[in-house]
Amino acid sequence: MRGKTTQGPVAVIMAGGEGRRFWPASTPDLPKQFLKLFGKQSLLQKTVERLKGLIPQDRVLVATSENHAATTLSHLPGLLAENIVTEPLPRNTAPAVALAALHIRRRFGDVPVAVLPADHWIGDLLAFRAALERALDHCRTFDGLITFGVRPTRPETGYGYIEVGPEAEKGFHHVVRFVEKPHLDEARVLSASGTHLWNSGMFVWRNDVLLSELETHQPVMARALRALSRYLETEDYPERLRETFQVLEPLSLDYGVMERSRNLRVLPVDFPWDDVGSWAALARHLEADPDGNVVVGEGAVLVECRNCVVYSQGRTVGVLAASDLIIAATENGILVSSLNRAADIKRVVDALEVARRTGPPPGRREAPGRPRSQG
Amino acid sequence: MRGKTTQGPVAVIMAGGEGRRFWPASTPDLPKQFLKLFGKQSLLQKTVERLKGLIPQDRVLVATSENHAATTLSHLPGLLAENIVTEPLPRNTAPAVALAALHIRRRFGDVPVAVLPADHWIGDLLAFRAALERALDHCRTFDGLITFGVRPTRPETGYGYIEVGPEAEKGFHHVVRFVEKPHLDEARVLSASGTHLWNSGMFVWRNDVLLSELETHQPVMARALRALSRYLETEDYPERLRETFQVLEPLSLDYGVMERSRNLRVLPVDFPWDDVGSWAALARHLEADPDGNVVVGEGAVLVECRNCVVYSQGRTVGVLAASDLIIAATENGILVSSLNRAADIKRVVDALEVARRTGPPPGRREAPGRPRSQG
Repeated sequence: MRGKTTQGPVAVIMAGGEGRRFWPASTPDLPKQFLKLFGKQSLLQKTVERLKGLIPQDRVLVATSENHAATTLSHLPGLLAENIVTEPLPRNTAPAVALAALHIRRRFGDVPVAVLPADHWIGDLLAFRAALERALDHCRTFDGLITFGVRPTRPETGYGYIEVGPEAEKGFHHVVRFVEKPHLDEARVLSASGTHLWNSGMFVWRNDVLLSELETHQPVMARALRALSRYLETEDYPERLRETFQVLEPLSLDYGVMERSRNLRVLPVDFPWDDVGSWAALARHLEADPDGNVVVGEGAVLVECRNCVVYSQGRTVGVLAASDLIIAATENGILVSSLNRAADIKRVVDALEVARRTGPPPGRREAPGRPRSQG
Repeated sequence: MRGKTTQGPVAVIMAGGEGRRFWPASTPDLPKQFLKLFGKQSLLQKTVERLKGLIPQDRVLVATSENHAATTLSHLPGLLAENIVTEPLPRNTAPAVALAALHIRRRFGDVPVAVLPADHWIGDLLAFRAALERALDHCRTFDGLITFGVRPTRPETGYGYIEVGPEAEKGFHHVVRFVEKPHLDEARVLSASGTHLWNSGMFVWRNDVLLSELETHQPVMARALRALSRYLETEDYPERLRETFQVLEPLSLDYGVMERSRNLRVLPVDFPWDDVGSWAALARHLEADPDGNVVVGEGAVLVECRNCVVYSQGRTVGVLAASDLIIAATENGILVSSLNRAADIKRVVDALEVARRTGPPPGRREAPGRPRSQG
């Protein structure tokens, strides 16, 4: 790593999750990054932990929503409060990254920046750190955006893919195109192609380069943020920030910037990685018993079960002769889902919201069972 | 029905359940007879309700354990407190029935008695009442024990069977033998034989006949109860009762008396009947939605599920893409079981008790998941 301290890299941890995919453990008040799914630390804590020795904690920013700021601080007691970049309204990743870039420019200058989701799983710390260090170094001389492409290990339909072009320099490759989340047939082809990588959502660039790309591809957003930047560290900032976000369109960084940029390189990486998009990730990355069951938390007993994931938080759970299920029980509720359909949990969460608003759906009895005949 | 009021029949509702088969809805403090599984009334309430107009409520006794007396009264506010015959210790059905017979002799004399489990489901009230009335009438002249044999509708392995002999009189048949709960192969043969009926556990006799059969087949028990009968309605009764039960061996009425008796007739009946031996009974007797799902209670949402039974009591339950499951959630805990294995719930309840006593079993992580590799 070259340069003075002020030239050292900065990390932006993207912690803006909505908390629907891990119901009933996650809720709008406690989204995925705050869950302890893979050990004693929350995903957010693990994300920050991975940077130790590479990026000093006072240069780690967390982009999150206003109402998660307090929980974020409670998970990261060493974090400077000023390093929490709060979004007053959810506007997806492009405005969040752009806002963080304003703060970085003011406080740190044109430094290398790593943008890292707060809620991913990474299975090889050393390989991850080596890749991150290479990218942070590369962006000092490369005036473009760098993304990490993870070599596929299965035909995953839950990820976008990146088609990799020829090598540009030092193991960094040109990007041919981005591929949307594929259906299973296409995922089989892509994951076996050798030329397609998983789009990890982890990025590296110099801060000035990102701001310049924003000006090019999202001029309206860039103009709004230019106007806001004059109020940074003034007492008017919170109000101006809210006004700015109110007029911004929700936009993902992938769609709004990455897929449009012509200054883009991908670093193929091999470390085990997962976006922890559903409960099924626990089956992939936690140690199972000889019958393939994964149990997280106390109070669960499995009898004659196979390939079940049971997450129990303060609940007594008994499971008998079940297979290939996710069972998650917390004080918020209970989920029972087929393991291979865990990614569709949104349908259950939506239905529960509708039921809460409208009462029991027609055809469901309201209270104790209606007998078929007199009983 | 002949005879004076004092000659009118008496019912003994057998309510001594232990409450393990419907965990987590049932518990030792709230066994099955108190659950509202098939409507707005508990099974106990339905059992008493079925007798209305046939047996006056002041001639309905409930045999239950001491610690369920208060709950029994709360379910049956019209019941006379003296009509609760409490067992100080669980000694199975023979001592319970024998004790009730002592009370009946003292209070009502040699009357016809119907012994009816408190926790069964009966699908045709009129047919049940007609059969009961016939048996109560028959026992005025028949000096023997009458049992109800239900015509099988499926190869049930959870019931004992009765082999029916030739007709003795007025539709009442001789009993050839009792058959223990069979394995599936044998159950297929028995249920299709036309000569075997389900042993329902519902009995009718004159009280003096039952006491005489007890003397014949269980002389030790009969002697102990003879000694106790002198203390009925004295202040020493509770203590003497406890002493008596302490020395009695646990014994089922079927094994101890019915299978030994040579004065036995069976009344074949056709009404739909179920001993509600497991959660699977809900799937059999409650109305299902077009996908075969049965939902009892509010707060449950099923998405793309088939043949699931969901019992939720004050819990929010979301089920996704599951089939052939029992899911029961109460404040006591959560059960998820394969529907066709619901009868083996005891294994789960036992395992949970062991886990509670000893902490998490070896091989289970105590708290948040142990990663396969660093994460």
